[in-house]
Amino acid sequence: MPAIHSSLSFYMKPLFLSNSSLFPRKFTVPKEYLLNPRSLCALSSASNQNGGRSGARSLSPSPVSDDLQKIDVNPPKGTRDFPPEDMRLRNWLFHNFQEVSRLFGFEEVDFPVLESEALFIRKAGEEIRDQLYCFEDRGNRRVALRPELTPSLARLVIQKGKSVSLPLKWFAVGQCWRYERMTRGRRREHYQWNMDIIGVPAVTAEAELISSIITFFKRIGITASDVGFRISSRKVLQEVLRCHSIPEHLFGKVCIIIDKIEKLPLDVIKNDLKSAGMSEAAIEELLRVLSIKSLTELEEILGGAGEAVADLKLLFSLAEKFGYSDWIQFDASVVRGLAYYTGIVFECFDRDGKLRAICGGGRYDQLLSTFGGDDIPACGFGFGDAVILELLKEKGLLPPLNHQVENIVCALDHNLQGAASMVATTLRGKGQSVDLVLESKPLKWVFKRAARINAQRLILVGTTEWQKGMVGVKILSSGEQYEIKLDELE
Amino acid sequence: MPAIHSSLSFYMKPLFLSNSSLFPRKFTVPKEYLLNPRSLCALSSASNQNGGRSGARSLSPSPVSDDLQKIDVNPPKGTRDFPPEDMRLRNWLFHNFQEVSRLFGFEEVDFPVLESEALFIRKAGEEIRDQLYCFEDRGNRRVALRPELTPSLARLVIQKGKSVSLPLKWFAVGQCWRYERMTRGRRREHYQWNMDIIGVPAVTAEAELISSIITFFKRIGITASDVGFRISSRKVLQEVLRCHSIPEHLFGKVCIIIDKIEKLPLDVIKNDLKSAGMSEAAIEELLRVLSIKSLTELEEILGGAGEAVADLKLLFSLAEKFGYSDWIQFDASVVRGLAYYTGIVFECFDRDGKLRAICGGGRYDQLLSTFGGDDIPACGFGFGDAVILELLKEKGLLPPLNHQVENIVCALDHNLQGAASMVATTLRGKGQSVDLVLESKPLKWVFKRAARINAQRLILVGTTEWQKGMVGVKILSSGEQYEIKLDELE
Repeated sequence: MPAIHSSLSFYMKPLFLSNSSLFPRKFTVPKEYLLNPRSLCALSSASNQNGGRSGARSLSPSPVSDDLQKIDVNPPKGTRDFPPEDMRLRNWLFHNFQEVSRLFGFEEVDFPVLESEALFIRKAGEEIRDQLYCFEDRGNRRVALRPELTPSLARLVIQKGKSVSLPLKWFAVGQCWRYERMTRGRRREHYQWNMDIIGVPAVTAEAELISSIITFFKRIGITASDVGFRISSRKVLQEVLRCHSIPEHLFGKVCIIIDKIEKLPLDVIKNDLKSAGMSEAAIEELLRVLSIKSLTELEEILGGAGEAVADLKLLFSLAEKFGYSDWIQFDASVVRGLAYYTGIVFECFDRDGKLRAICGGGRYDQLLSTFGGDDIPACGFGFGDAVILELLKEKGLLPPLNHQVENIVCALDHNLQGAASMVATTLRGKGQSVDLVLESKPLKWVFKRAARINAQRLILVGTTEWQKGMVGVKILSSGEQYEIKLDELE
Repeated sequence: MPAIHSSLSFYMKPLFLSNSSLFPRKFTVPKEYLLNPRSLCALSSASNQNGGRSGARSLSPSPVSDDLQKIDVNPPKGTRDFPPEDMRLRNWLFHNFQEVSRLFGFEEVDFPVLESEALFIRKAGEEIRDQLYCFEDRGNRRVALRPELTPSLARLVIQKGKSVSLPLKWFAVGQCWRYERMTRGRRREHYQWNMDIIGVPAVTAEAELISSIITFFKRIGITASDVGFRISSRKVLQEVLRCHSIPEHLFGKVCIIIDKIEKLPLDVIKNDLKSAGMSEAAIEELLRVLSIKSLTELEEILGGAGEAVADLKLLFSLAEKFGYSDWIQFDASVVRGLAYYTGIVFECFDRDGKLRAICGGGRYDQLLSTFGGDDIPACGFGFGDAVILELLKEKGLLPPLNHQVENIVCALDHNLQGAASMVATTLRGKGQSVDLVLESKPLKWVFKRAARINAQRLILVGTTEWQKGMVGVKILSSGEQYEIKLDELE
C-alpha cells in the first residue's frame, strides 16, 4: 500500500477558541451599506478576511448571554446521570430483564411516571407511601412520581376490562421515585423490573415468577451460594390473627409493623402491635409463629389443612420440579412492606447479609377489586437496579462493556470530506457501524480515537486512491493493510 | 401419536369467585382451640373442607379494605399507558433510533427526568420554557420534569470536563414533559430521540446528523417524497441584525419571535419585533430576507464572504456526497424555537403539510459556555415519538407487531404441573420462549391461547408419555404432531 499523504493544513487550528472578541460588541453600520441591499453585509465579509471559520464565534458574543448562569453540574440530589459507561451497564441489565421476560412469554408494558397521587394512597403506614414524591400540578391536581409500578398495572388491567384474555403475563422496566433521607447511598430514583401474572389463583404462578428471577440470576452469573429466597405466606399471619379475633381490616397494618421487625427494637414492634389492637397473648403467639423457619414445624402449629401450609407445600414441591430448591427456604418472618399482599410473599437476599433485599414480591389477590375492578387474582415482583449492581460489583461479576464501533472512516484531505461521507454511508447501508472523522486531524489523533472506540478497521480516503474509486483499509488488530474498491468493501 | 387424555376435573372451577363470604367477617374462636397450639387453626382447617383452594379468597375479606377506593382507570390527563400493543410499537421505534445511532458510532446516555428548574430557565419567551412542568420538592428545591434533553447533556459534558475526549457523539431516548393546554391531541409527555455532536465546529457535524435522520427514515419506509428538511442558519438573521445595529443580546428573543411567524398574524410579529427594539426598516429587511428560499438569492443579498452563506453552501455540497440532496431545501424562515441555537438550524416536515415538525435541530455553540463550561462547539437534534407515528399511520407504514411466543407448554393432568415446569425450564435453557399454562384448562382453551400468542409449537405433557420421559409436540402451523424425548427437544 503506498503511503497516503494527508493535507491537514486547512483545518489545523485550535479546537477551542477563546471568548475574546475581535470587535466591540456594539458598533454602527455606515449608512451607505444599508442603501445597497446587495452589499448588506459588506461589513461582515470585510471582518472575515482570514478565510476560515475561526472568526465565527468571536464575532457572535453569546446570543443567550442575557441568560448567563453558572449551573450546578451535578444532577439533583438523589438522582443519576447515565454517561456512556453507566448507560452500557444499564442497557446490559435491562436487556437481561427483557430477555428473561421474553423466555417466559411475558409482554412488555409501561405506565406514566407521573400518576394521580390517589393511586398510591393507602392507610397502612407503608414506607413507600410516606416517601411519595408528590406535588400539585398547574391544574391543581395532586400528582406523584410513581414509587412503584403495581398500582398503575392494576389500573390498566381494570381499564382494559374484558378486552384482554386472562391470564395476563406482563412485565415492565420503569423508573420509580421515593423522597427519602439520603443515607447509605440510597437514591431517590431507581429502575425496577416487574413481572406480574394476572388471573391465576394457583401458586404455580408464584413458582413461575421465582423461576424467572432465578433464570435471570443464572444468566448474569449469580448462583445459589450468592443469594437465596426467603418465602412465606401472609395467610400464616392471617390464620394467627383470625384465631385471636383480630379484625381483618387491621391485617395490612399488622403486616407493615411486622415488616420492620429486623429494623426496629422488639419493644417498639410490640407496642405498635398493641396500638393496632392486638392483645399481649396474640402478640406473643404471632412473634412465636414468625420465628419459624421450617415448613414442618409450621404445619405442626397451624395444622395441615389450612391454606397457608397447603400453598407453601405446593410451592416448595414445584420448586423441586423447576430445579431451584437450593435457592429457596421457608421463613415465617417474611411479610414484605406493601399493604396489598394477601398470600405468598418472598424476597431475595444476598447470603453474605451485606445488602438490602435484592427483589421482593407476592400475591395481591384483592388489589384490583379494592380499586373498583373485577375480583381477579394476581401476583408479581419488583426487582430494582441498585442492589443487584452492588452485588455484581462485590462478586466481580460486572461485565466488561466497551464502546465499540466497527469502522473509523477518515478523509486525508479536507476536500475529501464528502468522499468520506460517501464511504461511511456505503458501509452503514451494509449494517456496519462507522465513526466518521468530521474534521481534518493528524493520523496520530485518528489512531488514538480508533483505539478509544475499539474500532476494528480504519478506512482512509486519500486523493490518489479515491481517483481510482478505492480506499485504504487497515485492520487494527493485525496491522494488515490493503486497498479495495469502495463497492467491494463489506 | 396416541390420544393424550387429560384429567381436568380438579382445577375445573370458575376462574373468578364472587366476593360473597362463606363466613361472617368477625367470629370468635372457641377458647379450647387457643389452649392447644398444635391445633391453633383447627377452625381454619374445619372451614376448608372442600379440599381445594376455592374457599381461599372468600375467607379473607380484603386486607386492604380500609383503603377501598374506586380509582380513575385513566392515566393522568396528557399522559399515556403503554399496553402490550403500544409498547411493541414503542420498542420498535426506539430500536430503530438506537440502531441508527449505533450505525453512526454514537454512544447512548441518559439524564434524570427530574432536573433543577434553573437548568431550563432562559429569558427569551420560548414556548418550551412557558410550559415547564415545575414544582417545589419536599426539600424546597425548585425542580422540573425535563422539557428537553439538551440542557442536561450540556450539564453532563461540563461535569465530565477533561475526562472525555472530543468530539463526543452521544444519543439519548428519553421522556420529556410540557404542561400545555390539551389541544389537537397534543400530550403533556413525549419521548424524544436526541443525537448530539460535541466538539466539532464544522458543518460536517450537521451534515452527519441530518444523514442519520434520513437513514432512520429509510429504515422505516419513509421517502423523500413523504418528508423534507428545511434548512437555514441563524447567522443569516445575525448578519441582518448586525447590519441594523441590533444589540446582540436581543438575538435569542428575535429568533423566538420569528419562529412564530407561521402561527401568528404578521402584525403581531412586527409589533413584537418593534417591542424588542427593532426599527421598521430593520423589520422590513428582516422579513424580506426570511422569505428567501434560494441559496443563490441569499448570497446575492448577504454577499458571498459571510459565514451564513459559507456554512450553508458547504452543508448542501456535503449533502450531495452523502446522497440526500433531494431531501433538503434552503428556507431562510426556519429559525427554530429554542433560544440557544447559534448556527445551522433545520427542521423536518411532511410534504402533505398536515403535521407539526417531525424533528428539529441545530448548532448551539454557546450553550456550554453560557452554563459556565468551556467554550465548546456543539450541535444536535430532537426527534419526538408522536408526529412520526402519526405520519407512519397516515402512510400505512406502521409495522405489524404481534406478541409471539415460540412454545406453549401444557400439563394434561394437574399432577403433571411440575413436569410441565421442568419441560418449560429445559426449553428456556435452550433459548426458547415458553408460555407455561399455569392451571388445568380444557384443550380448547389451550389452542385458543396458543393462537392468541402466535405460538409455533404446543408441547403437551401427558401421564403415559411422561412415564417414558417423553412429551407430545404439535406444530401449530402444519398440524404435524409427534412424541419426542424431553432431552431431544430443541
